[in-house]
Amino acid sequence: MKDYIKIDEWKIIEEGFDPHLNKISESIFSLGNGRMGGRANFEEAYSGDTLQGNYVAGVYYPDKTRVGWWKNGYPEYFAKVLNAANWVGIDIAIDGEQLDLAKCKVDSFYRELNMQEGYLKRTFTATLPSGKQVSVEAIRFCSMADDETGAIRYTITPLNFDGEATITPYIDGDVMNKDANYDEKFWDEISKQAWENGGYVQLRTKKTGFEVATGMMIAVSQDGKTLNPELKPVEKEKYIAQKFNVKLIANTPLNIYKYAANVSSQNHEAKDLPQIAKATIQRVFDKGFDQMLQEQAAAWAEKWKHNDIIIEGDASAQQGIRFNIFQLNQTYTGEDARLNIGPKGFTGEKYGGSTYWDTEAYCVPFYLATAPQKVTRNLLYYRYKQLDKAIENAKLLGFKDGAALYPMVTMDGTECHNEWEITFEEIHRNGAIAFAIFNYVRYTGDHDFLAEFGWEVLIAIARFWSQRVNWSEDRQQYVMLGVTGPNEYENNINNNWYTSTMATWCMDYALTVAEYIKSTHPQRFQELAEKVNYREQEESQKFREIIEKMYYPYDEKRQIFLQQDGYLDKEQILVKDLPASDRPINQKWSWDRILRSCFIKQADVLQGIYFFEDNYDIDTIRRNFDFYEPRTVHESSLSPCVHAILAAKLGDEARAYEFYLRTSRLDLDDYNNDTEDGCHITSMAGTWMSVVEGFGGMRVRDNKLWFNPFLPAKWQSFSFHVGFRGALLNIKVSKAGVQISNQTSTEVSVVVYDQEGLIKGNDTVTFDVK
Amino acid sequence: MKDYIKIDEWKIIEEGFDPHLNKISESIFSLGNGRMGGRANFEEAYSGDTLQGNYVAGVYYPDKTRVGWWKNGYPEYFAKVLNAANWVGIDIAIDGEQLDLAKCKVDSFYRELNMQEGYLKRTFTATLPSGKQVSVEAIRFCSMADDETGAIRYTITPLNFDGEATITPYIDGDVMNKDANYDEKFWDEISKQAWENGGYVQLRTKKTGFEVATGMMIAVSQDGKTLNPELKPVEKEKYIAQKFNVKLIANTPLNIYKYAANVSSQNHEAKDLPQIAKATIQRVFDKGFDQMLQEQAAAWAEKWKHNDIIIEGDASAQQGIRFNIFQLNQTYTGEDARLNIGPKGFTGEKYGGSTYWDTEAYCVPFYLATAPQKVTRNLLYYRYKQLDKAIENAKLLGFKDGAALYPMVTMDGTECHNEWEITFEEIHRNGAIAFAIFNYVRYTGDHDFLAEFGWEVLIAIARFWSQRVNWSEDRQQYVMLGVTGPNEYENNINNNWYTSTMATWCMDYALTVAEYIKSTHPQRFQELAEKVNYREQEESQKFREIIEKMYYPYDEKRQIFLQQDGYLDKEQILVKDLPASDRPINQKWSWDRILRSCFIKQADVLQGIYFFEDNYDIDTIRRNFDFYEPRTVHESSLSPCVHAILAAKLGDEARAYEFYLRTSRLDLDDYNNDTEDGCHITSMAGTWMSVVEGFGGMRVRDNKLWFNPFLPAKWQSFSFHVGFRGALLNIKVSKAGVQISNQTSTEVSVVVYDQEGLIKGNDTVTFDVK
Repeated sequence: MKDYIKIDEWKIIEEGFDPHLNKISESIFSLGNGRMGGRANFEEAYSGDTLQGNYVAGVYYPDKTRVGWWKNGYPEYFAKVLNAANWVGIDIAIDGEQLDLAKCKVDSFYRELNMQEGYLKRTFTATLPSGKQVSVEAIRFCSMADDETGAIRYTITPLNFDGEATITPYIDGDVMNKDANYDEKFWDEISKQAWENGGYVQLRTKKTGFEVATGMMIAVSQDGKTLNPELKPVEKEKYIAQKFNVKLIANTPLNIYKYAANVSSQNHEAKDLPQIAKATIQRVFDKGFDQMLQEQAAAWAEKWKHNDIIIEGDASAQQGIRFNIFQLNQTYTGEDARLNIGPKGFTGEKYGGSTYWDTEAYCVPFYLATAPQKVTRNLLYYRYKQLDKAIENAKLLGFKDGAALYPMVTMDGTECHNEWEITFEEIHRNGAIAFAIFNYVRYTGDHDFLAEFGWEVLIAIARFWSQRVNWSEDRQQYVMLGVTGPNEYENNINNNWYTSTMATWCMDYALTVAEYIKSTHPQRFQELAEKVNYREQEESQKFREIIEKMYYPYDEKRQIFLQQDGYLDKEQILVKDLPASDRPINQKWSWDRILRSCFIKQADVLQGIYFFEDNYDIDTIRRNFDFYEPRTVHESSLSPCVHAILAAKLGDEARAYEFYLRTSRLDLDDYNNDTEDGCHITSMAGTWMSVVEGFGGMRVRDNKLWFNPFLPAKWQSFSFHVGFRGALLNIKVSKAGVQISNQTSTEVSVVVYDQEGLIKGNDTVTFDVK
Repeated sequence: MKDYIKIDEWKIIEEGFDPHLNKISESIFSLGNGRMGGRANFEEAYSGDTLQGNYVAGVYYPDKTRVGWWKNGYPEYFAKVLNAANWVGIDIAIDGEQLDLAKCKVDSFYRELNMQEGYLKRTFTATLPSGKQVSVEAIRFCSMADDETGAIRYTITPLNFDGEATITPYIDGDVMNKDANYDEKFWDEISKQAWENGGYVQLRTKKTGFEVATGMMIAVSQDGKTLNPELKPVEKEKYIAQKFNVKLIANTPLNIYKYAANVSSQNHEAKDLPQIAKATIQRVFDKGFDQMLQEQAAAWAEKWKHNDIIIEGDASAQQGIRFNIFQLNQTYTGEDARLNIGPKGFTGEKYGGSTYWDTEAYCVPFYLATAPQKVTRNLLYYRYKQLDKAIENAKLLGFKDGAALYPMVTMDGTECHNEWEITFEEIHRNGAIAFAIFNYVRYTGDHDFLAEFGWEVLIAIARFWSQRVNWSEDRQQYVMLGVTGPNEYENNINNNWYTSTMATWCMDYALTVAEYIKSTHPQRFQELAEKVNYREQEESQKFREIIEKMYYPYDEKRQIFLQQDGYLDKEQILVKDLPASDRPINQKWSWDRILRSCFIKQADVLQGIYFFEDNYDIDTIRRNFDFYEPRTVHESSLSPCVHAILAAKLGDEARAYEFYLRTSRLDLDDYNNDTEDGCHITSMAGTWMSVVEGFGGMRVRDNKLWFNPFLPAKWQSFSFHVGFRGALLNIKVSKAGVQISNQTSTEVSVVVYDQEGLIKGNDTVTFDVK
């Protein structure tokens, strides 16, 4: 837990330079535009503690798996998010002395992430060992308007001397991943070249053969006048720079403009990359920094129009929620169906892979409501394209006949993860993927998606479940053995209620969708049935039998769903009775002790109740919530949001707010002491869910938006935007009422506190607050 | 499965050279004397596929743990058995051409492990690329009579030429472990020196600081006459050699004698090692090769007097059982309580660590019956000395008040293993250690051991169990959650019958022994109680309550002990119905599929029934055997022996024999396709158990030996030796009867087929065979 970020509604601010916090700030102040991004490393050299990180979306390296003990079925490779060429670096030497904040006296250090306009700004005054003083302002961004580019304006002003500066802007591809399993470098150099005022380096990833050309162009001005210093190219392995000398004049600012591009073979012919890089940079160079910055602000303004949540009366909460929305937008724009939402986005490289069940379970609701429909569609299409690999993955584990098991972690569809209890057993992820299809169709009404892509995924998942259960002669029921639920503090358990519930739901939904397609798109149904070799009668009968005879653990005495067989054999202790010194248990206890305990990492039974809320009466929800939440340690960043939403549903506003607080400033306040590795991007969507589904009580039922909002006691008001079937609504909840403004001409029917109302185009309707 | 070893009752023989089998043979033909040993590598250079391995008992290196995903509680280091200096090497060049069997035409290749006399012999004729032919005979052994030494006689005879040989006997410490986690070398050089006709290299292990000096002395003779060639020392890093040239005369044998010593800082002052090495080699050099070889034969004759099992009518079985006994004796002599029985002995480095529960569960019965009492006592004392580390180990996992958890794998008492489901959960090992104490006292009658050492171990183990169970409010019984039983094809299960049975037995035995010590050694009891802070009333009451209220899973319908909760939920398939292509399942199935299946790796419930046989009536044993054995895949080398013994107990002689066959030639026939990594040393004791406890039906009850033998149908007779309370018996089972000869003057009372008889000193009594 840290507390050094200054509160501001639109900005993340750090004042004063503390080298111990630098890696945390590098994560928090990260920049991205969905295509490229990186940590908030300094432009000038820094010999202190830093994690240098620049990333290009979708470019990965299959690092050879490292395990202690090999188990059959482990994947051979783990796709790592690649640390790519550093395009931000500008070395500065003044009369031969290097500017390096680790070696200077630093004053007035200020770092700002301007979320409204989408740039990173840093200013400071440094006194070099020689006594020379300079002030610096650096502004940097990854362009949202032109997503293969970025730009920097680096302004250096000598304060107490005239002198000579040696400036070396560079592209350095000689980088390595901190998390490389065998300390290998992942890039080979293909070509590099210096141009008149720039240069590029073209690199190729080992094994995967992705090529990326990273280039730069330089402009310099002093006191507003363009300079044309003599540039001397410097070439090293995977490195190119343009070095030049400039006379520094006391109190006269020198501006260095660095325009950069990252162009990759994902989007262009590899052989053309150098010229495309050059043309791309030339384009933004010609446009100029100020123009780019204006376009950046405009692009972000458009995002905020659909995304923003405004909280009145709580600047800290306001900053927290905006930070989460900002980072989600930096990570994924939904333009490219080959990309997904990495758990660290562009803020770090830990965990590897880009796609977890987080996407379907947590991010889809966010993008459904705040982005064009195609964004979520792209996320679903991503999984559709990886269906073959999911079927291959299941085959490796002994499944057949088109059964699919989607990977726990992946980049290109192949499984990366290698803990048997997760990789092979945390199979509920398959359910989340099916649920996301359901959720998308429920939200958008885009039923055609089912016939086009969705059902192929659904039937493959249903087949997996039908093979993964087995008939227990002893119980005369179907059981699901050897799984790990969302609560990863239980491994290899039997009959996890959530997983079993998901499994039969998936089978049922696959059958429902089959019937739907059969009746509405009969020819397409024939095509699909042939394509996937659907033995309709046999398979549907089998699914129905399993659905009918599935065993779900239940405790009659407490009238609760049981997380798994034997859960009540555990010593029943509540989290509130755990000594503080024992927490977090995942750092304080040995793994077996955690497994034996009743403590729950994140929503498990309650995750199921969240997904299928309408299937349970309020007393059932309450009994389960009251039993499980007090046993939950919330040691996953994905946990509090589900609890916030359910607490709100149960009318427990204080606790809903308490859960919200745990997520909204997770990274800003470094709650889990791990922000230095990168931010928790996917869980940020959970924060949004806490506000919109929790405080706003938003649901989709019967093709309508339902709201059941309450106003947290500390707040004067909050408002959020929701896009729904062509309309864009702003919902503002205050003591004065629930005011819904339709910002489009498409009329929308909503239900507020069970009272239906029509919101006409460009109209505003106010409902009484409960 | 291979079939290339020639059958001989006293020898292991390989005829013809097949480079593809070389690593297997290197394992099978390994040599050792309990103190040093190594694989059957060639003396001359060999550029083909080989695993070079020389080992010094008790010398290890804590290699940094390698895992995919770190779990709290994992040990930082894994103690590796160290590949040590190669003392067997003698490079041979003939007129500049190197003798290397990978580059010669090889004829008449013959390799023999003479088990009766304890040496390795190899002869061959090689045609060099130049066409020159030589015949070679090499004889090598590690001296049992002088266990820091070894010797080689290497005889080379030119067949079709006169020429000049350049001979380079060397000591090479520049070796590395094949299983090093990070490809590091583990030895540093301390000193080296060439002497007049020898030299030594002194090495120190990194981190652990063990020092070993390995030295050699050389003698040469030709046609029976001593030669004194000019020796030229060659020094390289961690390497010393004495190079010399000799005129080769056609058809005239040249003998090179190489005497070697391995002296270590475990047994000597580190600073004295060079001079001790020199003195040690000088001692055997003066004695000479022939005298050493005679002493070797005599030492082995003494071993065989106590160990040998003679099978008449089945040379293959005879060879198999002798091989097992031979390797066990090569691995561990019981002279040094700091040593233990590594799973690969001196035959390979895989697995690391020297001590597993194999020692207590499988090896102790062998050494109890075939070695002086002190040998087993030393094995128990080894664990006693490591009690503090076992308490430390338990503390790391959250246990307290003197509870001990012995490590799964260790060298010095600290845990090495790092799979959570094994390291933290396969805790039944603690029970085997307590059982070995019980077994030792039952066999030897040495009750004083309990007061001296045993009870301290027992109470620490009992305390562990009392903390490891928990009270289930739901069941109103104590349960044991999150364990892995001996059947490692189930992980993190609840209420494993074997583990729970072991746990309460340990608590009960600790209390029984406490009462015994209190009544017989009251003062010692006071001392002990103070030393371990035994809160007698409180702790004994707690143990008794757990013993009384422990839950053991049981199936009423089948009247069997249930391996664990939920076992009957699994799909019940029998091994005989598994397709051959699916086996072994540990190579063909993914890990989760194995875990979900009902298939059992090795005796689990049946291991408990084996240990506590007298607690169960024959029908109970039969019901459990008939249920579990058909579900057991026997994919551990430790599995068939327990089943052989129980099958014999149940009168199923054919199946008992069948199980015996699976173990007795496991390595000789490379059953599991992994002998190239080394032999399965600890399971060899299981083979012995199959014969003595299975076919011989030997038990100890009421301070007497009981026999209930049968003669396998294929055999004419079998006989084995058993030492018991000062007497040495030979039991011969043939159609003519069960003949028991007392080879000592100590009279012994035995029970054969429930009929008691006294075997007077040096007397033979024959009982009718059943």
